[in-house]
Amino acid sequence: MKPKGLGPIPAGFEAHDGQLVIGGRSVSELVEETGRTPVFVYSRARLDARLGELRSALPPRIGINYAVKANPFAPVVQHMAGLVDGFDIASSGELALLKDLSIDMARVSFAGPGKRNDELEAAIKAGVTLNCESEGEAERTLAIGERVGITPQMAIRVNPDFEMKGSGMKMGGGAKPFGLDAERVPVLARRLIEAGVDWRGLHIFTGSQALSADAIIEAQANVIGLAGRLAGEIGAPLPKLNMGGGFGIPYFPGDEPLDLAAVGDALTDRVADLPMELAETQLCLELGRYLVGEAGVYLTRIVDRKESHGVTYLVTDGGLHHQLAASGNFGAVVRRNYPVAIATRFDEEPGEVANVVGCLCTPLDRLADAAELPRAEVGDLVAVFCAGAYGASASPANFLGHGPAAEMLV
Amino acid sequence: MKPKGLGPIPAGFEAHDGQLVIGGRSVSELVEETGRTPVFVYSRARLDARLGELRSALPPRIGINYAVKANPFAPVVQHMAGLVDGFDIASSGELALLKDLSIDMARVSFAGPGKRNDELEAAIKAGVTLNCESEGEAERTLAIGERVGITPQMAIRVNPDFEMKGSGMKMGGGAKPFGLDAERVPVLARRLIEAGVDWRGLHIFTGSQALSADAIIEAQANVIGLAGRLAGEIGAPLPKLNMGGGFGIPYFPGDEPLDLAAVGDALTDRVADLPMELAETQLCLELGRYLVGEAGVYLTRIVDRKESHGVTYLVTDGGLHHQLAASGNFGAVVRRNYPVAIATRFDEEPGEVANVVGCLCTPLDRLADAAELPRAEVGDLVAVFCAGAYGASASPANFLGHGPAAEMLV
Repeated sequence: MKPKGLGPIPAGFEAHDGQLVIGGRSVSELVEETGRTPVFVYSRARLDARLGELRSALPPRIGINYAVKANPFAPVVQHMAGLVDGFDIASSGELALLKDLSIDMARVSFAGPGKRNDELEAAIKAGVTLNCESEGEAERTLAIGERVGITPQMAIRVNPDFEMKGSGMKMGGGAKPFGLDAERVPVLARRLIEAGVDWRGLHIFTGSQALSADAIIEAQANVIGLAGRLAGEIGAPLPKLNMGGGFGIPYFPGDEPLDLAAVGDALTDRVADLPMELAETQLCLELGRYLVGEAGVYLTRIVDRKESHGVTYLVTDGGLHHQLAASGNFGAVVRRNYPVAIATRFDEEPGEVANVVGCLCTPLDRLADAAELPRAEVGDLVAVFCAGAYGASASPANFLGHGPAAEMLV
Repeated sequence: MKPKGLGPIPAGFEAHDGQLVIGGRSVSELVEETGRTPVFVYSRARLDARLGELRSALPPRIGINYAVKANPFAPVVQHMAGLVDGFDIASSGELALLKDLSIDMARVSFAGPGKRNDELEAAIKAGVTLNCESEGEAERTLAIGERVGITPQMAIRVNPDFEMKGSGMKMGGGAKPFGLDAERVPVLARRLIEAGVDWRGLHIFTGSQALSADAIIEAQANVIGLAGRLAGEIGAPLPKLNMGGGFGIPYFPGDEPLDLAAVGDALTDRVADLPMELAETQLCLELGRYLVGEAGVYLTRIVDRKESHGVTYLVTDGGLHHQLAASGNFGAVVRRNYPVAIATRFDEEPGEVANVVGCLCTPLDRLADAAELPRAEVGDLVAVFCAGAYGASASPANFLGHGPAAEMLV
């Protein structure tokens, strides 16, 4: 079997006595503490380090928001509360989570194209900023605010006329279900301001999972330009501008990490030369995957080792029910391998080519195809890296009755 | 926007006073009873009708097993207990479900390439037949049986040398993680019989979601031929043969229903002329999707109606977190539309072309692209048909914090 490449393991993961170490502890210790596999292990030190890199690279003027959807595990969200300036949520479920964690609702904004009336009401009552997605939603929000006697805090989500080039997922440019086409924003903004809402500004999201600094730099310039023009047309200052995110992480063979320094330098120049309409505007980035993705590792145990027509299969007790994207079944056109390793033989050289599969009765359940790995046996642990974002919560945990993986923050 | 076709709505769904009726009740009544949307509604009458069609078409010799993974909603499984001859499970979670429902474990078999030791032990203790996937799993099973002092009931899952042509998902032919390559089966079967297990026979699964009767007829002939040869080589009768399933349902534009009569006629002929090694063998089909898929409808409410660059979006409170396959993100290479309708305007002619999307902040969350539909407003209900199998349990319900849909059997 001709080997296929594996995605790059994020820098800094090391072996001790042959075992992958996360947060200073070996994978065997971590699994023993959890009492079961599979388990997602998230590293506090990596979360801290990533935020440190961002604070160093970005101008101090730029706030950093955490998009909770990337990883809503409560201890992770709690830890992020000490690191970031704000939170972006996408449902009343995420709102309830932040309430449970006693997070200051003045730091929270809520975007999502299909907000139900009960979600709007919960957000208004909680004092969360609503990123309005349409004229219809705006009128519903105003009516609910009136009914409950609370002034809604409202921003407008803009569907820009440009997109982030090379982003894994395009969120702007052309017809989209997200936000309001840019040319309709001034009319709605004036309507909201005249209706007496607490006007919070604009949210412009242009894409996600971009690894090209140039693409991000260009998108940010476009976002600032558009926001300045819209502020002028609205005729009122923008209290806040959520510039979106889009910072990607390397998942696949050949992917290179984002040049964060280049993005930071360009943004520093840009912030020094803002359009006058944004002179007093609070600027922030909304990041999810970039903050938490590389801080997480999914550990699953090999329960069978078998051959079929000359091909070696390492069958694990995990699978796509926890790792939908890694299996290639979420937004991917062609399946490619994530970074995967034998965590209990992390310092061994490759000794064979094997397919790593999950425990589900479906050929879709693949964790690594034709991977060059140290020879592993039943009982060894497999690590899937880049598992900190859109893993546990973005996978069908109940498929085939297996249930969710364990999660831990170390 | 040029309209794209929608998948065919299963025959027999009708309107009353303009509303889609399921199990004799309008969708508005059903949603009112549930108290929320989205909701999966499963129809007892449709489950009964499908089983009736199968019993009429198939020779009496052929048992029908239900693959619980297709829909593990407890009331559905309970209802199936009165209709089918056996159950196939894929995890200890499904085993626990059947136990809770007091289903006779003598009717249950357990297949899955990554059975953990605790799952093997639970199955042995419960008296479930284990469809063994490898020599390694066989030895683990024997050891556990010895340790707990219970004789395991064991069959062998065979990876056949042929596949079901035209099946949506190939499960046999070439290297596979499922079962044992056919040529290694006799040695392992003799080993198990000599070790004193309760020998239960073979499980041969060749594919799934096939709409071609010819392909199924050919695969069944091959399965019976292979089982006969293997029984001869084993030198012991096969108590049971699970012939797999693979019966598909139409999801997409142009799909035609399976010609069940043709499959039944061919199988009747085949059963009248069985290899002598199978003369006393209990034969069964394992069906999941075909039994429950068309009995389910997913209902979601339109919460926004918006335009973007001339495109109309109907934004619902549902989405891919309940309908991953319908969104095109599960095993599909090219996204095509499932059968979708405006359930509260079920007798109206199309009046516009619209995109039906879910409430998630991702461009992946699409329920229908460029669909010709009656003009719908906020508050209308959208029906996604063919939602009875691999819907609720095969989707990432916790994605973005929305949580699972309601489910009801009517």
